[in-house]
Amino acid sequence: MIDVAIVGASGYTGLELIKILLQHPGFNITCVATSEGAPSLAGMHPALTGIIDMPVAKADADEIAQKAQLAFLALPHKASMGFAGQLLEKGIRVVDLSADYRLALETYEAHYCPHEDKAHIAEAVYGLPELYRDEIAGSRLVANPGCYPTATLLGLLPFTRYIDERFPIFIDAKSGVSGAGKKCTHNTHFVTINENIFPYNPLMHRHQPEIGEKLHLQSGKSFDINFVPHLLPLTRGEMIDTYCLLKEEIDPIAILEAYYKDAPFVRIFDRPVDIKSPSGTNFCDIYAKCVDRKLYINSAIDNILRGASSQAVVNANLMCGFEEGLGIPTIAYVP
Amino acid sequence: MIDVAIVGASGYTGLELIKILLQHPGFNITCVATSEGAPSLAGMHPALTGIIDMPVAKADADEIAQKAQLAFLALPHKASMGFAGQLLEKGIRVVDLSADYRLALETYEAHYCPHEDKAHIAEAVYGLPELYRDEIAGSRLVANPGCYPTATLLGLLPFTRYIDERFPIFIDAKSGVSGAGKKCTHNTHFVTINENIFPYNPLMHRHQPEIGEKLHLQSGKSFDINFVPHLLPLTRGEMIDTYCLLKEEIDPIAILEAYYKDAPFVRIFDRPVDIKSPSGTNFCDIYAKCVDRKLYINSAIDNILRGASSQAVVNANLMCGFEEGLGIPTIAYVP
Amino acid sequence: MIDVAIVGASGYTGLELIKILLQHPGFNITCVATSEGAPSLAGMHPALTGIIDMPVAKADADEIAQKAQLAFLALPHKASMGFAGQLLEKGIRVVDLSADYRLALETYEAHYCPHEDKAHIAEAVYGLPELYRDEIAGSRLVANPGCYPTATLLGLLPFTRYIDERFPIFIDAKSGVSGAGKKCTHNTHFVTINENIFPYNPLMHRHQPEIGEKLHLQSGKSFDINFVPHLLPLTRGEMIDTYCLLKEEIDPIAILEAYYKDAPFVRIFDRPVDIKSPSGTNFCDIYAKCVDRKLYINSAIDNILRGASSQAVVNANLMCGFEEGLGIPTIAYVP
Amino acid sequence: MIDVAIVGASGYTGLELIKILLQHPGFNITCVATSEGAPSLAGMHPALTGIIDMPVAKADADEIAQKAQLAFLALPHKASMGFAGQLLEKGIRVVDLSADYRLALETYEAHYCPHEDKAHIAEAVYGLPELYRDEIAGSRLVANPGCYPTATLLGLLPFTRYIDERFPIFIDAKSGVSGAGKKCTHNTHFVTINENIFPYNPLMHRHQPEIGEKLHLQSGKSFDINFVPHLLPLTRGEMIDTYCLLKEEIDPIAILEAYYKDAPFVRIFDRPVDIKSPSGTNFCDIYAKCVDRKLYINSAIDNILRGASSQAVVNANLMCGFEEGLGIPTIAYVP
Repeated sequence: MIDVAIVGASGYTGLELIKILLQHPGFNITCVATSEGAPSLAGMHPALTGIIDMPVAKADADEIAQKAQLAFLALPHKASMGFAGQLLEKGIRVVDLSADYRLALETYEAHYCPHEDKAHIAEAVYGLPELYRDEIAGSRLVANPGCYPTATLLGLLPFTRYIDERFPIFIDAKSGVSGAGKKCTHNTHFVTINENIFPYNPLMHRHQPEIGEKLHLQSGKSFDINFVPHLLPLTRGEMIDTYCLLKEEIDPIAILEAYYKDAPFVRIFDRPVDIKSPSGTNFCDIYAKCVDRKLYINSAIDNILRGASSQAVVNANLMCGFEEGLGIPTIAYVP
Repeated sequence: MIDVAIVGASGYTGLELIKILLQHPGFNITCVATSEGAPSLAGMHPALTGIIDMPVAKADADEIAQKAQLAFLALPHKASMGFAGQLLEKGIRVVDLSADYRLALETYEAHYCPHEDKAHIAEAVYGLPELYRDEIAGSRLVANPGCYPTATLLGLLPFTRYIDERFPIFIDAKSGVSGAGKKCTHNTHFVTINENIFPYNPLMHRHQPEIGEKLHLQSGKSFDINFVPHLLPLTRGEMIDTYCLLKEEIDPIAILEAYYKDAPFVRIFDRPVDIKSPSGTNFCDIYAKCVDRKLYINSAIDNILRGASSQAVVNANLMCGFEEGLGIPTIAYVP
Repeated sequence: MIDVAIVGASGYTGLELIKILLQHPGFNITCVATSEGAPSLAGMHPALTGIIDMPVAKADADEIAQKAQLAFLALPHKASMGFAGQLLEKGIRVVDLSADYRLALETYEAHYCPHEDKAHIAEAVYGLPELYRDEIAGSRLVANPGCYPTATLLGLLPFTRYIDERFPIFIDAKSGVSGAGKKCTHNTHFVTINENIFPYNPLMHRHQPEIGEKLHLQSGKSFDINFVPHLLPLTRGEMIDTYCLLKEEIDPIAILEAYYKDAPFVRIFDRPVDIKSPSGTNFCDIYAKCVDRKLYINSAIDNILRGASSQAVVNANLMCGFEEGLGIPTIAYVP
Repeated sequence: MIDVAIVGASGYTGLELIKILLQHPGFNITCVATSEGAPSLAGMHPALTGIIDMPVAKADADEIAQKAQLAFLALPHKASMGFAGQLLEKGIRVVDLSADYRLALETYEAHYCPHEDKAHIAEAVYGLPELYRDEIAGSRLVANPGCYPTATLLGLLPFTRYIDERFPIFIDAKSGVSGAGKKCTHNTHFVTINENIFPYNPLMHRHQPEIGEKLHLQSGKSFDINFVPHLLPLTRGEMIDTYCLLKEEIDPIAILEAYYKDAPFVRIFDRPVDIKSPSGTNFCDIYAKCVDRKLYINSAIDNILRGASSQAVVNANLMCGFEEGLGIPTIAYVP
């Protein structure tokens, strides 16, 4: 059993990490922490009553280093980079769920803020197992992808060689409200989003560079990524609809099946997917259709599992030499 | 045309008042105000874009008195009492949507706070038209009932003479999230209430005394009111399920139809009602069933219309000598 | 007052027609009919209880011709064409909400079924007032546009001259469940669509030809329309997100404002729109953004009002010489 | 490993049984059947794609008897009684999720239909583990309680000795739409129940006798049960609010904690419960409050797990000598 810490236990992704690790045969939760600390984990997450309870520590690198061999950082970007650096110095492996180690330095600083842990950026591995399974296995710092890039990249990667990069790629993304976080804001107020839907930050979303950079690394091509996210009136799940132009007509299902034949957490469907079938699981469900040279890719994930916490545990499995799917949820929240 | 002001225009009830008064043939909106003021009403309520726009004044009694003959106060309790007093001194009629003038002084101070406008409590008329139509007509200060008491009283009033007051009356109330207001809180966060329901303040809700006091005034009896409100995962509407014991078996539908034969805004159904049929209207829909001596009363209203703003305009109609239903919405938000 | 009939009164669009016409100063409902007939209109639509009631006739052209000067046909395609022809022969003006008269004969028969009223196709005017206001005024048969084409065309029409037609236009459409009709099916079952979203008939939706044909008539250009509709977990409303490539960079807001400067039912926003602000109204809300040569158009309507019934009444207003906006709803169902 | 069959695999409770048994260390699914059969289980429940697939047999007692030692019957009442009898004759143990063996013969026939397997009613044990743990252990036929009686009885049982049976017990029940089943009906249509709530069969619901009979068996008292169920706009979960009068004031939390001190699947809270915290689990969450002699009991369960499938597996665990909680879900579907 490997002792693990969860730093940032108060949010939705922190809760999902706890729910998975509680039942994981290889990991043992020895420390949960938040910036402020709290008397009781079950008090913070009432649904855990009777399942687990322990004090919530005030996040401190020394204490974490004493209690755990691996730490999951479910912190906002910027808050993460300090911690990760300290923990690595103390020999603790880190899975960082924030954006802090996902991008090349220049890209990061152009879209977020000055980076305060430049020393470790180089060794960070982008935690998309389908793309970097081997690199993750050897690493001590994994940058867990964002929910939008995860579902978008898994849909696009099999097709990069067929896409005509002279034309833009349009991505219409749809996310449940849990993606907006636990903070009480106008957009997360029930009355604002119930019976409603709206886009936000169209064509300027921070995830464009993350998607573009990873596609470039995989294909050597520079794609013109145009991303429009929407907030949906539902709690969990994310759907990505991608539209692009190909150099020639293809059979997209055959290409998807070949590309993911060894991927345990990608499911290919020959009809459109829905958001609910993968909810509660680590699956990414993908469908695609090609008409003439036009390609439509339709992918869906659970935004706080495959888009965050369950993918983080898959990465931890690989880092620790466990089987990729050990303790990873596969049974959906249906009906 | 009578010039009216809406003080507290930023909330849901303020918006509903604007929506009704905009199309009202007898009232003319000359002033909208909030505690802070704002550059644009349509900016504050984007759905009004292209319909109406005007600056939102910083609430000031003198300015309101110059611009309006009647004021609707859609303010929190305590904030209202100061304004109402000042406006009345200046000869402005007031419909107060807060709790400040609904109760006898002692009852109010026991459940809310010290009262700062004792001078006017005595003349305030409780704005439930089915109970005080004539008194409202002559008054210059109407205390608009709360949403819970409105639907509860309209269900109970016809039966007070039949109810055995030695036994408790149990009221299971269910409200949409708009009833919790526009403030961003844990309970109004989409993720908290979506796919969920929960009671709050069981058996101690502030509306118990309001209901009990009005029943006593009408019947001379003291009933034991036990109120349990719930928050529902929907935006607007309220359902009240009331359970009590009678002195003898009755025909509740016949009693309801007789009691409300002249009430234009009460609809009696011979089967259970739903929350959606009266939504968007001033109707209170009521069904009741009696088995042996047990009575079940099932009533539904739009919590921010019949439970607040449209009832306030009905009261203003009566105060100004207009026909009770002038400009009052009757077409439901269905499907 | 002009006497009107509503044929197909049992569905959502039939109900919306009744709700609007009930309060319309120029039209008088003299006949409501369905294929089977029914004893009571309020029984069929309980929310109308206390507002209107009348027997629901078994749809018959002779009876309708005796009772009405104009008929709204809220029937499925194919059912409409028979009626419309008969009514026109009897001198009744018709607003047809079905697809039967929207398309050129060949296009219609290619996507629907053999046409049984070829005689009247030629004189049918496509009822998009912003495009054919004058032609509608003189006509006796108006083909009311579908909800998807309405919101899509209103977004695209101002930009046809700027769009590079060599590149496909991708349309990601999102509709509330009322768009799927009142029929009880797997897709309209609450458990299927609640907390869910899914596309259907991607890139093959029947509305592609309707959109393409009207764009061609207006611009002389042939655009490659690629339409992907989604079902959303909400009752009413529709959002269309359109992605295309331009010949040059433009200022889309200025172009929209110029194009719609005289359109009373199009609202231009300088930020993304939402589905709820136009719900309950005839407005089409539009926002657009251009980055380099990429254009994103974001439009929203109430699918059963601007996408069906309120647009039908606007067309009837124009046909009868009334002011375009007479009796048309403009106050949104918010909050 | 014990081989089990699931008869009635197409519904929600059938799906939940599959989800639990798939991960259960003691049971092995060897047969899934429906009345018609089907080529593929994953085709019937797409969310199971990649997890499990097998042909769905046409339900036949002989085939089931060859393949399984225990059968779960997730069939409608009346359909179950035939099967259960046949299976018992062949030595197969049965957990019946229908109403067929829950009641005394007279009570059953009074509320349902003539019983066709009278021979086995006597040996059927009512599968509420908190009440009949020992009897279940020895039985070969367990009648799994209904969802409403489960949550109602678990709330009432600790208090029967304190309740004044001369006064009626009022039960205001609230259920998610999954409780109405997979059938497409007007009440399960998204547009009917979304943004809505309504009671059905008030004071005449079939679950009244089931609740009354079990309370009588446990306490020897005859209570006057008055049950009013409501349909809620959410998919899964059930809340029961019970109102009654006591002989004297009590400390309800202390009584609950004492009564359930050894019950692993009942959680006592000192504040109101919500529907979501137990969703996805076998827990029944209970809160109660007493004011003078009035008692309010507030209990919540997942209607298709604790109210059906997970309770059925708990019963199977006890019947087979496994630990009560073996393989039973305890991690909630939150957020």
